[in-house]
Amino acid sequence: MIRVVLIGGGNLVYQLSYNLLKNSEVDLIQVINRSLDSIRYLENKTEITNKLSDIQDADIYMIAVSDNAIADVAEKLNVTGKLVVHTSGAIPLEILPENCMNGVFYLPQTFSKGKKLDLSVIPICIEASSPEGYQLLHKFANTISNNIYELDYKQRCHLHAAAVFANNFVNHIYHHSKEICENGNVDFEILHPLIQETAKKIVGLNPIEIQTGPARRNDIITLEKHKKILGKDQIELYTFLTKSIMKTYEKKL
Amino acid sequence: MIRVVLIGGGNLVYQLSYNLLKNSEVDLIQVINRSLDSIRYLENKTEITNKLSDIQDADIYMIAVSDNAIADVAEKLNVTGKLVVHTSGAIPLEILPENCMNGVFYLPQTFSKGKKLDLSVIPICIEASSPEGYQLLHKFANTISNNIYELDYKQRCHLHAAAVFANNFVNHIYHHSKEICENGNVDFEILHPLIQETAKKIVGLNPIEIQTGPARRNDIITLEKHKKILGKDQIELYTFLTKSIMKTYEKKL
Repeated sequence: MIRVVLIGGGNLVYQLSYNLLKNSEVDLIQVINRSLDSIRYLENKTEITNKLSDIQDADIYMIAVSDNAIADVAEKLNVTGKLVVHTSGAIPLEILPENCMNGVFYLPQTFSKGKKLDLSVIPICIEASSPEGYQLLHKFANTISNNIYELDYKQRCHLHAAAVFANNFVNHIYHHSKEICENGNVDFEILHPLIQETAKKIVGLNPIEIQTGPARRNDIITLEKHKKILGKDQIELYTFLTKSIMKTYEKKL
Repeated sequence: MIRVVLIGGGNLVYQLSYNLLKNSEVDLIQVINRSLDSIRYLENKTEITNKLSDIQDADIYMIAVSDNAIADVAEKLNVTGKLVVHTSGAIPLEILPENCMNGVFYLPQTFSKGKKLDLSVIPICIEASSPEGYQLLHKFANTISNNIYELDYKQRCHLHAAAVFANNFVNHIYHHSKEICENGNVDFEILHPLIQETAKKIVGLNPIEIQTGPARRNDIITLEKHKKILGKDQIELYTFLTKSIMKTYEKKL
């Protein structure tokens, strides 16, 4: 049994704790969070506390807090020699205590509280400061997912930036798409199947090769037509992204 | 039986012909296209021709060609009194022949040749110039999909512009996300589950309310970190979209 202590109270802790409590190879012995209210749902399932000083003996300590709180938690941890990992895509491993084995356990996924995902298909990116650390992290990650990747800090930063594009920026585009529909008195639901299919297409197809639309075919008439019905912020986005697409394919010629 | 003639040879004709040939309420009696080669796959399944003058008698004539070719086809059609529809999201109905019933049959979806989609769940947006036209178009569309929407030209233009965001712009963002991964020697496949989940989330959740990421939380340290590893074009996109997200939420405060 791998004994695990989780530190944090956000969506990742929600997902992981749910998974680890069902996991026959892992014992989630404790969850620690500043605010007990955020982890109250775990009350009768594992030990919960808001005091780092009450920390239990375990094999893995996972700091699943926001980036700017990791250093503070790491500093207060007193678990010499144990494996301490954080879960951030953008922070180096060296932020963790020197007297421990250090590691990273990064899931490039978007979690919502209340929505349980099947973690077995979700990639886990790991890094460790020692072979023993890698061994234990692999063993642990394998009990959760079938897709484990070893990534160093530089690779992880690239992946994290790419995830900002694929998740944050795409969601922002969805927001504007919805707003355009609403401004035109059109039900945004009409576009749901298109959105799902656009996402599905990148599995197996290269996005640069399947780009379509007025910007791709230099269709000035449609571009001007669209600009006439868009709001100010939307026109800015539309103009910028249209130019960006045109530039991409000019280069290809 | 509704007798249909399709004009065109692209991905939409591929999808529709496949569907209509299996459709027990529709008789696809002819497909007409400038290039016979593009519709050769239909050779033993229905009549194919490259001559508009050989057009057969039917109930619905569907002009499924690119926007800038619709007028030319419409002008050459000689099918007085029949229902003639085009399939464009951005062209008004009035482009069609005056001596016919006119209509629009617009599917806001992305089609790839060789990949057959289940059209029964795909929205069809219709418009007609007369009640008889609406009646026939509804009857026809209902044999294909369970999601039929009546949209006028203004609504359709908004939907079309919103589809450019949700499909073309999002695909362009995917391309850059992939490129960032490749530049960092990271397998883009790691992000596939994130991309699918981001798309799934908008069904039921409002994108403006689930926006996350460094831009949303004004995380300057991560933003600067990302800019250091991005290429020139990516930095431009990153900076612009980050500002766009920040502006959206400043307004909300």
